[in-house]
Amino acid sequence: MLSKLPMEFEFDHVGIAVSSIEEGAKFYLALGFQVQHIEEVESEKVKVAMLEMANQSKIELLEPTDPRSPIAKFIAKRGFGIHHICIRVKNIEQKLEVLKKSGYQLINESPKMGAHNCKIAFVHPKATGGVLLELSEPTSL
Amino acid sequence: MLSKLPMEFEFDHVGIAVSSIEEGAKFYLALGFQVQHIEEVESEKVKVAMLEMANQSKIELLEPTDPRSPIAKFIAKRGFGIHHICIRVKNIEQKLEVLKKSGYQLINESPKMGAHNCKIAFVHPKATGGVLLELSEPTSL
Repeated sequence: MLSKLPMEFEFDHVGIAVSSIEEGAKFYLALGFQVQHIEEVESEKVKVAMLEMANQSKIELLEPTDPRSPIAKFIAKRGFGIHHICIRVKNIEQKLEVLKKSGYQLINESPKMGAHNCKIAFVHPKATGGVLLELSEPTSL
Repeated sequence: MLSKLPMEFEFDHVGIAVSSIEEGAKFYLALGFQVQHIEEVESEKVKVAMLEMANQSKIELLEPTDPRSPIAKFIAKRGFGIHHICIRVKNIEQKLEVLKKSGYQLINESPKMGAHNCKIAFVHPKATGGVLLELSEPTSL
């Protein structure tokens, strides 16, 4: 199981469910982070704040803008805190194919377009042992 | 709140509570990850598997080796899944001091030595809005 081969994965971001961007950002601002970007994603009924780190990874604060938002439902069930993690991959279609063939449950069987020209797909927590996992592949760099 | 200043933070790892390293690693192996390192940390009653990513970040799978392990208690309460995230910082003592002065609850008020010659300290989920946050500073690079 142990090996040292080239690594094709990169950590992209951790998504954190917060009551509001303003409240949720306070701790990270005190620590020395800056909020680089805030946007509202209407399709997901969520407001997103990006706090970038030096190694091309980010904290995403997720504030529900409507009680029907998936984030609002998550908070109602699990409380505030980590909602998902996102890993950058190469050839996302092939990755999803491999997982599907191995019987792992996917939320998105083929990629959809996300922010910043990325192809994204979510893997169900049942597949990963309790982790909502987003795979992401930038289409232009 | 929006700004573009130099970034002093790096995402280090996400810690995931699993039933066993063998079971927990299966999904990531199917996806194409390799397990680079496995070790048992007796003081924490936990077995740890490291799955490295290209941007100096890692997935840590955490298997409790004893029912009294903090990870076993976490699993009993919350189920399998994400246990904590770790962010690399500069001047960890100063960061802890700032957080303490701002009234944020710390689990470790001063850093302790962790794996790989890192100074580490945990911030309480009550401070962060539900996230168990590890801060880490490498002492030799």
